[in-house]
Amino acid sequence: VKIDAVDFFYLAMPEVLDVGDGSQDALLVRVQAGEHVGWGECEASPLVSIASFVCPMSHSACKPVRDSVLGQRLDGPDDIRRIGDLVRAQSLDLLQADHTLSGIDIALWDLLGRRRGEPVYRLLGDQRATPKLPYASQLFGDTPEETLRLARAARDKGFRAAKFGWGPYGRAAPADDAAQVFAAREGLGDDGVLLIDAGTVWLDDVAQAARRLDALRACRVTWLEEPFVSGALGAYRRLAELAGPVRLAAGEGCHSYHMAEQLLEYAGLGFIQIDAGRIGGIAVARRVAEAARARGVAYVNHTFTSHLALSASLQPYAASEPDAICEYPVEPRQLARDITHEQIVPDADGRIRLPDGPGLGVTPNLAAIAPYLQDVEIRVGGRTLYRTPAL
Amino acid sequence: VKIDAVDFFYLAMPEVLDVGDGSQDALLVRVQAGEHVGWGECEASPLVSIASFVCPMSHSACKPVRDSVLGQRLDGPDDIRRIGDLVRAQSLDLLQADHTLSGIDIALWDLLGRRRGEPVYRLLGDQRATPKLPYASQLFGDTPEETLRLARAARDKGFRAAKFGWGPYGRAAPADDAAQVFAAREGLGDDGVLLIDAGTVWLDDVAQAARRLDALRACRVTWLEEPFVSGALGAYRRLAELAGPVRLAAGEGCHSYHMAEQLLEYAGLGFIQIDAGRIGGIAVARRVAEAARARGVAYVNHTFTSHLALSASLQPYAASEPDAICEYPVEPRQLARDITHEQIVPDADGRIRLPDGPGLGVTPNLAAIAPYLQDVEIRVGGRTLYRTPAL
Repeated sequence: VKIDAVDFFYLAMPEVLDVGDGSQDALLVRVQAGEHVGWGECEASPLVSIASFVCPMSHSACKPVRDSVLGQRLDGPDDIRRIGDLVRAQSLDLLQADHTLSGIDIALWDLLGRRRGEPVYRLLGDQRATPKLPYASQLFGDTPEETLRLARAARDKGFRAAKFGWGPYGRAAPADDAAQVFAAREGLGDDGVLLIDAGTVWLDDVAQAARRLDALRACRVTWLEEPFVSGALGAYRRLAELAGPVRLAAGEGCHSYHMAEQLLEYAGLGFIQIDAGRIGGIAVARRVAEAARARGVAYVNHTFTSHLALSASLQPYAASEPDAICEYPVEPRQLARDITHEQIVPDADGRIRLPDGPGLGVTPNLAAIAPYLQDVEIRVGGRTLYRTPAL
Repeated sequence: VKIDAVDFFYLAMPEVLDVGDGSQDALLVRVQAGEHVGWGECEASPLVSIASFVCPMSHSACKPVRDSVLGQRLDGPDDIRRIGDLVRAQSLDLLQADHTLSGIDIALWDLLGRRRGEPVYRLLGDQRATPKLPYASQLFGDTPEETLRLARAARDKGFRAAKFGWGPYGRAAPADDAAQVFAAREGLGDDGVLLIDAGTVWLDDVAQAARRLDALRACRVTWLEEPFVSGALGAYRRLAELAGPVRLAAGEGCHSYHMAEQLLEYAGLGFIQIDAGRIGGIAVARRVAEAARARGVAYVNHTFTSHLALSASLQPYAASEPDAICEYPVEPRQLARDITHEQIVPDADGRIRLPDGPGLGVTPNLAAIAPYLQDVEIRVGGRTLYRTPAL
C-alpha cells in the first residue's frame, strides 16, 4: 500500500502550567494507507513539529518532512526504515524533523501491526514481551516532607521502584539535596529501587555533581539521571568514575541514533534512556536497544505522556530480559489518561506487560480527546499549509 | 536597556529549487532595545524557527524561545551569554530552539556593537581582525567537464581556494567521483587550495569513504568535508587514521557547544566548521573557536547565505591568525545579495576583511528585500501567535 495521508492533532489541557510535567499537551499522528490506519505520538512542542511537516522547502536538504513520507510504499518494516533514512537525508538541515518523524514512525509500526494482526514487537523480530518492573516517575516535592509523602504514596500504590527529579534538586545546597534523597529513601522503604533525576541542572560541572554523591551512595540510589546536558560526554565519564555503585543514566534528549551511540561509547553510562517519540521513532530506538545490549548498558524507555506513547516506548526492548525496568508516568494529567481507550496497568505481580493486541495494542479514544483539540492554522504567502483536521 | 521587541522576517526567492543551494531563503531577525536596533539571521527552515519563537508552552522545560528573551536586560556581552543559557534551559525539549536562538544572539551582538560604536569582534575581546583567504564555495557540476569549467571560472575570478560539493559526488562509482576531483584540480590550477564536500553522503560507512581517498590524495585535497553525518564520531576517527595528508572537516550541523566539543575530542578532525546561524549564535561559536585552538584544530566559518550571515560567521575567529581561510558564498541567489547595503568583497590581495563599522558592519537593505518578504500567519486556539511584521 501507499501512504495516502498523515494528519496531526495538537491536544492540550485547558491550562498549561509552568511545571516540569510533560503530560500537559500531546501531538497525535494519524497515518492512512489504503484502508489501513495507524496512530503515533510526537514528544516535544506540537506546533513546531507540525510546522516542520508542512514548511516550504528551503533547499534540497531542508525539505518539509511531508515530502519524504506522503506517497511512499509501506509493505513491511524495511519500508519504515527506508522512510526514516529519507527524512533524515532530505530534512538534514531541519532540526525539528527528528521529533516530527518520531510520531510518524510510531504510527507506521502501528499501522503495519494492525494490518498483519501482530503486536509491534513481533514485527521487530521478538517472539514475546517480558514483564517490566515499572518505576513511578514523579517530581520532587518542594520540601523533604512533601517528598517523603510522595514516596510513601508510591509505595502504598504498590510501586517497588520510584524516581524523583527536577523541582529544587541540584539548585540548593548539597545538604538540602541530601535531605530530599534521604526523604525519598525513607518513604519508599529499604527494599525499593530508588532513582534520582537531576534534570541536567549542573550542565557540565562535575564538581557540583560530585558533591551530591555521598548522599546518593548512602541512600543506595540505583541511578543518577542527567546530571549534565546530553552532549557533555567527558563530564559524564569523569562522574561515572567517581560514582562507584551509583550508575549514571541519560539519553532522553537524543534525537538520532548517533547521539545515543556516543553516549554508549564515551559517557560511561549504566543505563540509556530513549524516548521513541523523540529519537526518530521505534526503528531508531530499536537500533539503540541492540547497540546498548552489545555494550552491556541497560536500556530503559523514557516517556511521560499517554499510554500510546508508553506502549511505543516499550516495544523496542520488549523481549530483553536483562533490561528489566521501565518508566511509568504515575500522575499524568487527565488529557494523557484520556488519549487511549485501554490503560496499561501493573499486573497482580506489580509488573507492566505490553498489550497483546495488534500494533501498539491501544487505540485513541476520539470522543474523549475531542475537547482537548487545539484549532491551529498556518498560512504562508496566501496558502494554508496546515489547518487542524477532523478527528 | 531591556529587550523590547524581537521580529522575524521570512524572505524567499519567488521560486525555491530542489538543489543544494541554501541561499534561496533567509530568516532575518530584528531586535529592539530602547532606541537601539540590531539585526541577525537564522540558518535553516524559517517557518519552523518562527514557530519555535511563538509556540505555546508545553511544560517548564519546553517554553517558546520568546519567553527567555523578551524583557531581558542587555547591557553587555555577559547578558547575551546569560540569555543563551536561559533559552537552552527553558527550551531544553524544543529541538528547533538552537536555530532560533542563533539569529537572536547575532542581532544582540550587532545591537551591542552599534550602541558602543565597536565591531563585534572587539566586544569578543579581539583588537583587530586578520584577513582570511576566501574559498569559493560551490556545487559540483553534473559532469567533470562542467566542474572543470566551474573551477576555471573560480580561478579567473581570483579565488586561490575553492570547494566543490554535493551534486553527484559520492553516489557514483569511485572512478567517476575521482574524475570530478581531478577536473576540479585541473580547473583550479596546481597552486590552488582544493576542498571537497561529501555532504554526509556515506552516513557512517568508512569503507565507502576510504575508496575515494586515493583520488583525494593524488589531487592534494586539503580537506574532505562531511563524509559522514555529524554524530558518527567513530567513523570520522577511523577515516582520519586512513586519510593521511587529507584532513577531515565537519561541524556545520552542530547545534550546541557540546556537539562541537565531541567532534574536537573524538573525531580526529583537522578543521571544524561552525555556522553561527545554527549553533546558537556568535557566543557559542566563539566558545568553540577557543576550544578548537586549544586542541590544535583549525576553525572555519560555515555560511552560504547573505553577507550579514557571512559577517556573523567570521566574528568568532576574526583575530586568529592560524585560522587563515574562510568560506565565501560565490554564487548566491539575488535574495542573498540584496539583503545588505554593503558587500564584503575580496581586497586587492584576494583576502576577506571584516568591516570596521560598528556591530556586524553591514546593514539590511529594507527596500531591496521587501519584495522577498513572505506573508506568514500562525494561529492557535483563536489567537494569532505570529503575523509578518512591517519591515
